[in-house]
Amino acid sequence: MSRFLSKEAARLAPYTPGEQPTDAQYIKLNTNESPFPPSPKLMKAMTRAEGLKLNLYSDPTCSHLNEAIACHFELQPENVISGNGSDEILAFAFRAFCGEGKGVAYADVTYGFYKAQVALFGLEPTIIPLREDFTLNVDDYMDFPGTIVIANPNAPTGMAVSRMDIQRLLEANPDRVVIVDEAYVDFGAESCVPMIYRYDNLLVVQTMSKSRQLAGGRVGYALGSPELIGALNRVKYSFNPYNVNRLSLIAGAAAVEDEAYFQQCCGAIQGNRKWLVSELEALGFTVLPSYANFVFAKSDQIGGGDLYRLLKENGILVRWFDADRIRDYVRITIGSMEQLVELVDEISRLLEDM
Amino acid sequence: MSRFLSKEAARLAPYTPGEQPTDAQYIKLNTNESPFPPSPKLMKAMTRAEGLKLNLYSDPTCSHLNEAIACHFELQPENVISGNGSDEILAFAFRAFCGEGKGVAYADVTYGFYKAQVALFGLEPTIIPLREDFTLNVDDYMDFPGTIVIANPNAPTGMAVSRMDIQRLLEANPDRVVIVDEAYVDFGAESCVPMIYRYDNLLVVQTMSKSRQLAGGRVGYALGSPELIGALNRVKYSFNPYNVNRLSLIAGAAAVEDEAYFQQCCGAIQGNRKWLVSELEALGFTVLPSYANFVFAKSDQIGGGDLYRLLKENGILVRWFDADRIRDYVRITIGSMEQLVELVDEISRLLEDM
Repeated sequence: MSRFLSKEAARLAPYTPGEQPTDAQYIKLNTNESPFPPSPKLMKAMTRAEGLKLNLYSDPTCSHLNEAIACHFELQPENVISGNGSDEILAFAFRAFCGEGKGVAYADVTYGFYKAQVALFGLEPTIIPLREDFTLNVDDYMDFPGTIVIANPNAPTGMAVSRMDIQRLLEANPDRVVIVDEAYVDFGAESCVPMIYRYDNLLVVQTMSKSRQLAGGRVGYALGSPELIGALNRVKYSFNPYNVNRLSLIAGAAAVEDEAYFQQCCGAIQGNRKWLVSELEALGFTVLPSYANFVFAKSDQIGGGDLYRLLKENGILVRWFDADRIRDYVRITIGSMEQLVELVDEISRLLEDM
Repeated sequence: MSRFLSKEAARLAPYTPGEQPTDAQYIKLNTNESPFPPSPKLMKAMTRAEGLKLNLYSDPTCSHLNEAIACHFELQPENVISGNGSDEILAFAFRAFCGEGKGVAYADVTYGFYKAQVALFGLEPTIIPLREDFTLNVDDYMDFPGTIVIANPNAPTGMAVSRMDIQRLLEANPDRVVIVDEAYVDFGAESCVPMIYRYDNLLVVQTMSKSRQLAGGRVGYALGSPELIGALNRVKYSFNPYNVNRLSLIAGAAAVEDEAYFQQCCGAIQGNRKWLVSELEALGFTVLPSYANFVFAKSDQIGGGDLYRLLKENGILVRWFDADRIRDYVRITIGSMEQLVELVDEISRLLEDM
């Protein structure tokens, strides 16, 4: 370790993002991006005139974007905070709602980045195992006194919990915050947004990276009571007040306003998912029930690590996690039908060769 | 305070950014933006084809941008980390290089955001007063054992320290990091970049918000030894791996590559500054010697707060800090000649009315 590093930085657990190769043309099914381009309305909103204003700071309050998001969800702007991707928003939430005397709990199998972020703030999380079948039992969280983080649908399993289950958690202890990370919710799970007016301890985090074709624009947001949003703003204004750039403010507003395109893209992903699941099952895979834009699947013939490597050698990237309980699986993003047909062909060939 | 807030978040000291009004047309000389549009080459690089790729994540390693920056400064890519504005980079640096047993020191009159960021990480800074004339005496830092942060030129004074002075600090204790925040260096001060190969404890932080007309694009970066850059990457990958969006990656690279436009804009600002200083002095102002794209000035007839308010009422925004030692001053961004002529006319009128 460097002699310059603080003790706190030495204890960090930096995250390894999915491969983003720039050197070769892969069929990229490893980071849960949308296979579709951004909304045509978004492209129209990103004008030359807006580019010419890049010498001026972006609006630190993100007012136009927050209003567009609030309007879409039938909330008020004071229920919204926007960020440089939902990862930034999650970091704000860990600092705002966890610390000395306020613990944090999440599942053993969930979004791997929580671990990196809690380490950033020196938090020691309580890890609560999913059931054997990867379902989440909310009763396991009932007595936990601190902040709860639930990815719904969960990553990398794609499995969902019901709104009713989250409601039970919110009601069991109104003094603790429940953070529901809905990065993948638009592909079929029940969103908790309709409960925001009712529970001031509910924070819903969403992203435009998946269902709104804007991973490269970095726009995420949280929805919650003005009290929770105010707490997140305390952190934002202590970290980076101008956290969303000018063009992303415009892109995000346009993306959230184009409901027709959003519905069409989400529908296509759900259709493609259905097809992929049936093909994989026909090839002997076990596929967890997915409500996300990816599936988590294991073969009865080949291990997860081997499948990942063989697919990569043949130009297809999927994600494999070398971690307990999930080592046999690969996570496959729902791409376009063309991409999925190539994937299924390739897997069939690999299995025939075994 | 909210019952949901962590103790750590309750202790924060959120920053108040300069006013960014959206409701009226002001002559905006309050946040040190460039009055010039972004480089024409930048505008050309931001193509429709790049916009159509926004569904895909940006490169988390920022490789193309880092290479462009490294090339410009005759460094290697491993000497560079890019961020969502230099504020983000500064936050990474406070976490990487300060903490338990590693203190942090900076001046009493300097960039106000340091205070917010050290609070974010629970640090207790050592505040070292500038001399009576606002010059920084490096001897005051010689024996400080922790990390040193020096804004050069300083904000809001605009005054600079020499490279030789920084060199003395670097040599006095090679085990401590010296962070030189060069947000404003391109307007006439001596940059420490040429010392990067020689001192592995030197971190230079720069931004594209001022001299490269890209405040709204949010691109900042740090230059230093691979050891320091590696430490900053530990923090970045614990906070937000995809921290720079796709379009800003392109814009930043184009901005740093357009040397001719950069030189022309910096030259114009320096010329305008010279004119403004002489006009203000003719009106009885004391103007601190500025090496930045702003001047810090006090009138012998009107207090800083009154001048700020009267100018605002008349459609001109400048920045006033209601803080000890600098309450009599206003900070005025060097805008276009048209803007500065209006400012000087307005100030003359106000003084005549007194």
